[in-house]
Amino acid sequence: MAKTPVLTPRAQDFPRWYQELVNKAELAENGPVRGTMVIRPYGYGIWERMQAGLDARIKETGVQNAYFPLLIPQSYMTKEAEHVEGFSPELAVVTHGGGKELEEPAVVRPTSETIVNEYFAKWVHSYRDLPLLINQWANVVRWEMRPRLFLRTSEFLWQEGHTAHATYEEARDFAARIHRDVYAAFMTDVLAVDVVPGRKTARERFAGALNTLTLEAMMDDGKALQMGTSHELGQNFARAFNTVHTTRDGRREHVWQTSWGSTTRMLGALVMAHGDDDGLRLPPLLAPQQVVVLAVKGDEPVLARVRELAARLRVEGLRVHVDDRTDVPFGRRAVDWELKGVPFRVEIGPRDLDDPSGAGGTATLVRRVPGTKEQRPLAELPALLPGLVQEDQALLLRRTRERRTERTSDVRTIDEAAQAAAAGGWARIPWALLGPEGERQLAARSVTVRCLTAEDGTVPAEDDAPGNLALVARAY
Amino acid sequence: MAKTPVLTPRAQDFPRWYQELVNKAELAENGPVRGTMVIRPYGYGIWERMQAGLDARIKETGVQNAYFPLLIPQSYMTKEAEHVEGFSPELAVVTHGGGKELEEPAVVRPTSETIVNEYFAKWVHSYRDLPLLINQWANVVRWEMRPRLFLRTSEFLWQEGHTAHATYEEARDFAARIHRDVYAAFMTDVLAVDVVPGRKTARERFAGALNTLTLEAMMDDGKALQMGTSHELGQNFARAFNTVHTTRDGRREHVWQTSWGSTTRMLGALVMAHGDDDGLRLPPLLAPQQVVVLAVKGDEPVLARVRELAARLRVEGLRVHVDDRTDVPFGRRAVDWELKGVPFRVEIGPRDLDDPSGAGGTATLVRRVPGTKEQRPLAELPALLPGLVQEDQALLLRRTRERRTERTSDVRTIDEAAQAAAAGGWARIPWALLGPEGERQLAARSVTVRCLTAEDGTVPAEDDAPGNLALVARAY
Repeated sequence: MAKTPVLTPRAQDFPRWYQELVNKAELAENGPVRGTMVIRPYGYGIWERMQAGLDARIKETGVQNAYFPLLIPQSYMTKEAEHVEGFSPELAVVTHGGGKELEEPAVVRPTSETIVNEYFAKWVHSYRDLPLLINQWANVVRWEMRPRLFLRTSEFLWQEGHTAHATYEEARDFAARIHRDVYAAFMTDVLAVDVVPGRKTARERFAGALNTLTLEAMMDDGKALQMGTSHELGQNFARAFNTVHTTRDGRREHVWQTSWGSTTRMLGALVMAHGDDDGLRLPPLLAPQQVVVLAVKGDEPVLARVRELAARLRVEGLRVHVDDRTDVPFGRRAVDWELKGVPFRVEIGPRDLDDPSGAGGTATLVRRVPGTKEQRPLAELPALLPGLVQEDQALLLRRTRERRTERTSDVRTIDEAAQAAAAGGWARIPWALLGPEGERQLAARSVTVRCLTAEDGTVPAEDDAPGNLALVARAY
Repeated sequence: MAKTPVLTPRAQDFPRWYQELVNKAELAENGPVRGTMVIRPYGYGIWERMQAGLDARIKETGVQNAYFPLLIPQSYMTKEAEHVEGFSPELAVVTHGGGKELEEPAVVRPTSETIVNEYFAKWVHSYRDLPLLINQWANVVRWEMRPRLFLRTSEFLWQEGHTAHATYEEARDFAARIHRDVYAAFMTDVLAVDVVPGRKTARERFAGALNTLTLEAMMDDGKALQMGTSHELGQNFARAFNTVHTTRDGRREHVWQTSWGSTTRMLGALVMAHGDDDGLRLPPLLAPQQVVVLAVKGDEPVLARVRELAARLRVEGLRVHVDDRTDVPFGRRAVDWELKGVPFRVEIGPRDLDDPSGAGGTATLVRRVPGTKEQRPLAELPALLPGLVQEDQALLLRRTRERRTERTSDVRTIDEAAQAAAAGGWARIPWALLGPEGERQLAARSVTVRCLTAEDGTVPAEDDAPGNLALVARAY
């Protein structure tokens, strides 16, 4: 007997599948103001784990957290010419406060380079004050005309790092370090998402940056999602805000800066990189609940066994949830945990207590990532599961890597590139054959250059370095 | 030789002392939009420790974190009559988004009862969905005419809890549990601030609540600071938003709700409860850096000793910072750590390496809380310091308790109460002798009823319970 599908199958309607999964797994809902979202406890628990993982890696680089105001004087936004051009169409503007019209309207921060520089200019005096390494966890608002939960929302949560350095080289290296040691490492090792590191073309760069480093991931429909970016800001904001330091030899020079961010968009990436027709599949190292121990039916011996196993698994360092809601049909609960993507389900019912071998009974172990289901002696599980955490974590990453490799083709013409993207894949084309003019033509066909990479997969130092490849795709 | 004071003495000008301390200890600065603030890394590090401590206690009660949007449709605010009256004068209003005037203006959340209820109404169907226990860490905006860093800012950071229950009693008990087991416990045990629990009078209640529980602390100038509140909302918001559940016996009933919050204001409380003329004094259990090990001068043997001691103290579980900036004068560094209130300073110089006893050298130990300074064998410090953490933590709490006891007087008339408050103290007066009319008269003299308490110090169940005492004071 075939299962009744709980979600529209991906192959039938991918966007609808996404929307249904996000709602039914209780990750998020649309907010009342256009494009805003409510992140529900299950979704927020995943975000908290992302925050903890990123925050620790950020702090290891010597960065400290701080907090800058939500409201920015409108005039700040206009000080850096490219920045204002890039962000003006997306601003939310506060015109009234405390019952009166404000003398100067304030914008709700879309990002904080401007207000951060106002303070860096006060705090930095000499080379001794550098590098200045700051991060903040905050909400930002960018008005969104075609909103989509997690992927494009008018308000989202993120961390934004802002640093100031004495030299161009130090700033460049720091932006690269965050890109590699914080973002790429976290996304690969914890999110289990294969990411391609590269640099953005001039067209795709952050408004006000000299260079933008990006990490691009292929979703299950073959489209690309930008997972996080790290910008070399050069001296653009320093000049606009007069952020100057006295060098070791007594000269007055503008500082060199970086900024970098990662957002609640990563939750959307998890869904589209790892989800299947039954729901989400969470990487075991990320999952707030790694194991759910379910009582299939509810007499006391079963419940006692469930609680005992949960306690033993916790001793192994696993994050365990007990589902003893035996007044809710077992099938409904099982479907719900599939939807929510909990990596391991251990089901214990009255029949599992029968123990002909004398070894303490059995349980059904369901692994969400490979989708396997097997009967196991209860006593084996505490020793077994920590290894399976590593195994299924690696499996998820491998699948995203295989998908990307299989669906990426090498092409030589703009037509071929556009066709590959339209067919649900990525194309690699020598940047020398494409160039800004070819990029413009692709854009007219809804295909963008996601990033430039060197032939060996490393991040090139210049847009026009010989041998640079452009990775092109449709994108979220 | 007397020290040059780094701060205006408290006795001379308390508000100025506060402002100087907050700036010079690098806790926070004013933001560019009126009443906003920049929380600097040192101040934010303390806030992160507060967040971690509160978050763990909140989660122990079964509450889960979530996130609701910053922007609330203006019409939501008007649905609960008292709520709109209370918050209207403080609202910041977004009228433009994405370059266009909005059809309906959105307010920047001053608190989230309204938008939370919009979703609770969707999520709650039957008694099985209750209790619904949610918290969020967020920023809120309340336009402030007379701003003061941490104490009254137009934007502040906080946690706001929102719960829905099946019965009045459950909601009442949950509000009391948060008040007692989360707020009072954290403030007493971690912030080392003596807090008086009580209930607010009708005049001082949260806009839309049946009852507000509060914790009030005496600052060093004798004024009161409200440290955190927990509200019984009754069915007021449930009626306004139609948040209804099916009871066990099949009736449709509105839910009973609570909300509760604590804010970055606690940073201001730390300064004014524990600070002295040399700066902040951080409770050792809260301090991001419990011990600073300073190299007095910088030859390699000293630096090696400093690093070795820091490593040994970290093994004891202490949070240790190494200050090896030997190019900055020692005196300046010592003053700076006093300002920042680090509980323990261990100073090691070349003379400390002389070791006539053969026991491994000495160090100067400076305890910030009692203000003592003594020479100690280095080898003793790892075993000694964990005990001193507890001792100085207890000492700080005791001092705030003694101050409150000494400066609280029992009075029988409104005049006496107003005089006690004007003289920099608190007064206790039987509520039966004061009443709403006496409260109004006191308010005209800038004195408020901070809370009502029972004679035995417990929280009374009603405003007019026999024997209720009103605690009156000037307040922040």
